[in-house]
This record gives sequence, structure tokens and C-alpha cells, in this order.
Amino acid sequence: MEQGKANPTAAMLAIGDEILSGRTRDSNIHHLAQQLTAVGIDLKEVRIVADDPEAIVGSVNDLRARHTQVFTSGGIGPTHDDITADNIARAFGVSIDIRADARATLCKHYPNGEADLNPARLRMARIPDGATLIDNPISGAPGFSIGNVHVMAGVPKVFEAMVAGLLPTLETGMAVTSATVRVERPESVVAPALGELAKRYSDLSIGSYPYYGSGGYGTNLVVRGTDPARVAEAEADLIRAFCDI
Amino acid sequence: MEQGKANPTAAMLAIGDEILSGRTRDSNIHHLAQQLTAVGIDLKEVRIVADDPEAIVGSVNDLRARHTQVFTSGGIGPTHDDITADNIARAFGVSIDIRADARATLCKHYPNGEADLNPARLRMARIPDGATLIDNPISGAPGFSIGNVHVMAGVPKVFEAMVAGLLPTLETGMAVTSATVRVERPESVVAPALGELAKRYSDLSIGSYPYYGSGGYGTNLVVRGTDPARVAEAEADLIRAFCDI
Repeated sequence: MEQGKANPTAAMLAIGDEILSGRTRDSNIHHLAQQLTAVGIDLKEVRIVADDPEAIVGSVNDLRARHTQVFTSGGIGPTHDDITADNIARAFGVSIDIRADARATLCKHYPNGEADLNPARLRMARIPDGATLIDNPISGAPGFSIGNVHVMAGVPKVFEAMVAGLLPTLETGMAVTSATVRVERPESVVAPALGELAKRYSDLSIGSYPYYGSGGYGTNLVVRGTDPARVAEAEADLIRAFCDI
Repeated sequence: MEQGKANPTAAMLAIGDEILSGRTRDSNIHHLAQQLTAVGIDLKEVRIVADDPEAIVGSVNDLRARHTQVFTSGGIGPTHDDITADNIARAFGVSIDIRADARATLCKHYPNGEADLNPARLRMARIPDGATLIDNPISGAPGFSIGNVHVMAGVPKVFEAMVAGLLPTLETGMAVTSATVRVERPESVVAPALGELAKRYSDLSIGSYPYYGSGGYGTNLVVRGTDPARVAEAEADLIRAFCDI
């Protein structure tokens, strides 16, 4: 990617009642956040919504208009509560039906091929018109990309495998490097000098993250930026500023 | 709460670059989801946004118009990147300044009282006009409630303590009971009969959650509802339907 060009932006939409009810602790958000940061796609926002048609259609249409890429997880299985694919089709105003390529993929996955394709499994071959398939090396049933929206499974192993296959096909940006300086003092003590430093390095992102350990409160100072030399310079300044407090 | 009245709804807004960059794995969403479910407040959506004024103002105003309660986490510490309180004030169109009650709370927390209140710490006494304080038994600096928006810290220990103090003050609903039936078969095998059952129990939420274990794919069937007798009835039917497959 060109020097000086801003990184592509992304949003994630996690779909599922089980996350909102507290039954399941999502791990896909954290996984995707790390993967996108590593390739220079800036994750700007995440939403978690229920298995609810209006919530899915509204969020997808809002997010795809504002970001380079949108990644979804959940709701593409074979059961009655898997309504993501149908509502992605609605969001794009296209039809959806069982598609030959998806059906063939499923066929290959089951031991008895076509004979194993009951109506539930065939639901997983329903793909919106114009979408391209995302490979599922774990359990066969594919995800799909339509426009800038990438629709993937919620089961973490499958989600992670789909992301691994998808990311190399997307335009990426400048990877962000970070450096962390750990200061054994509370945020309120480091804040004044930190604020001054953040002004001097306004081209970088400098964050402070309190932690609570056995010795009481401490602070992790984190510098992030796409120019490794500049990040190292700020890190050295942070160490100088806080080694004597 | 009255029988038959719908439960109050809620949204959560987690604020912080560190979650979106993958540096921190959020735990507050899962904690709040479990706490709200236990008291019958229905968490309908979650958003994670960056430490960005427009993102905070836009999300808060959108969510507070659509839900009974909104809970936020993050961005109320003493450093330059803690911009949540100021932007909540902007969202409500009210002014914000250091307030005597918040200042007194901080004063009591530090060993040397007023002498310890440097400008960074005083930032944590900035409270929007018309807000009421949320107690912070862990580290002193209060959260606050304004209208239906409850603004809390991002550090999990502090967030959890604030939620524990806040929840008993809110109108709650009918707690949701759930029952889980574990079936050692993939979703695509249980789907047809499950769909039929879900139609018969349309007053309940019946979800199916695939897992991948040592014996291959299995499915957890989860029934949720506010009437324990009805949940038990559906659970018994699920066991009957799936004990012979």
C-alpha cells in the first residue's frame, strides 16, 4: 500500500442471543481484533446483536456504508435460529437460494454425499445472489462474501479458519507496531507528564491502561503507530520521563 | 414487576482503543450480560467504539433513545485519553465541571486528602450537570448516571463493583430461567425435530449451539423463558425427542 495512505477500516458484527444472555463468552472479537491489527486494517467498531432480523439488517447496512470491510460471526448453521444469511440477503436487496457450488461443497464433506443432505443441512447451502464462498476447512459449510461484507460462522475454530483464508485476499495497510512501558504508579501520578508527551507525539496513539496488582495500582503506557522508528523514539522518551517517579 | 409486562431492555457501550486493537480482551461485556440476565433486564445490543468523540456521542444518543438502560465502560480515568465523561456531557447537551461531591469522594480516598488532588486526579471529579454519582468502593473515583445512561470504569474489578452497587437501584423484570440439553449429534441432525419443537414453544426462546469436542460435533439445546414450569416442560420434550437419535 502507498506510503501516507490511511489504512482500510473495518467493523465487526457478532450475531447471537447466546452472547447477549451471558451464556457464551465471545472469543471471536478478540481474535479478529488481533488479526486485523497485524495486517494494518483498523478495526473501528464492533456490535453484538441478537438473532433478530431488524437488528441484523439495520446494523449491516449502517456498518457497510461506513467501513472498508465488515466481518460478521454467527447464525449460519442449519437450525431454525440461524437467520443470518437470509437477513444479509435482505440487507443487500438480493434473493437467496440453495446454490450449486455451496451444495457441492457440502456434498463432499458428508460421508454419504448427496444422501446426507437433509433439509437442515441444505439450509447451509443457501447463499445470497452475487456472493462468493468463503472456505470452511473445518466443517464444510461455507461462509460467504457479498460486497464488502464477510459472513462467517460463530464456532471459534471455524471462524478462525475462515478468517485465516479470507484475510490474504483483502487489501491491507501499514501494520501497527506498539511498545509498552510498565510504570508501577497509578495513572493519576503519571497523567500530567504523559499528557505533555502525547502532545509532542500527536502522530502516534499513546494510551494508558491501569492495572491492579499485588503492589496496588500501576499503569501500562502503550505507544502505537505505523512507523517503527517513531514508536521507538516515543518509547525511549516515556522511559526517560517515568524512570524517576 | 407486573405479570405479562415486557422486561426492561438494555444496551452496553464499551469504550476503548485497547479492545479494538486486540491488546485487551474485554471481560466487562460478559459480566454485565450475566448480571442483567439474572435480574430480568434484557441486554439487546452491545457496541465497542474507540476513544473518539463522535463515536461516543453518536452511539450514546442512538442507544439511549432505544433502550430502557444504557451501561458504558471505560474512559473515565485521569489521563488525556480518558474522554468519556466530556462526551457524555456533549451527548446530553449539558456542561461538565469539577463537582464538590465528586471532589470530596476523591479527597477521602487519598492519604493526604486535598493535597493529593493533582490536576490529573481532579479530572476524575468532572461530572456532567444533573448526573448522580455511582460509588466506587475499589479506587475512589466515582462513575455517574445521567438520564438512563450509567457511566462506569473499564478496569474489571472497578466495573464489577460499580455494577453491583447500581443494579439494585434499577427497575428489573422477570428473571430468565434456562435449561440445557446436550445432544451428542451435530446440529444438522437435530435441526428438523428441533424446528418443530421451537414452533410448539413459540413463547420460549430455543437456541442450538454447536460445539466441537473429542467425539466430533455435538449440540447444546438451550431453552430460555421467564416461566420456569414452561421451561421445564420444553426441556422434558427435548429430552424425549432426542434421546433416541
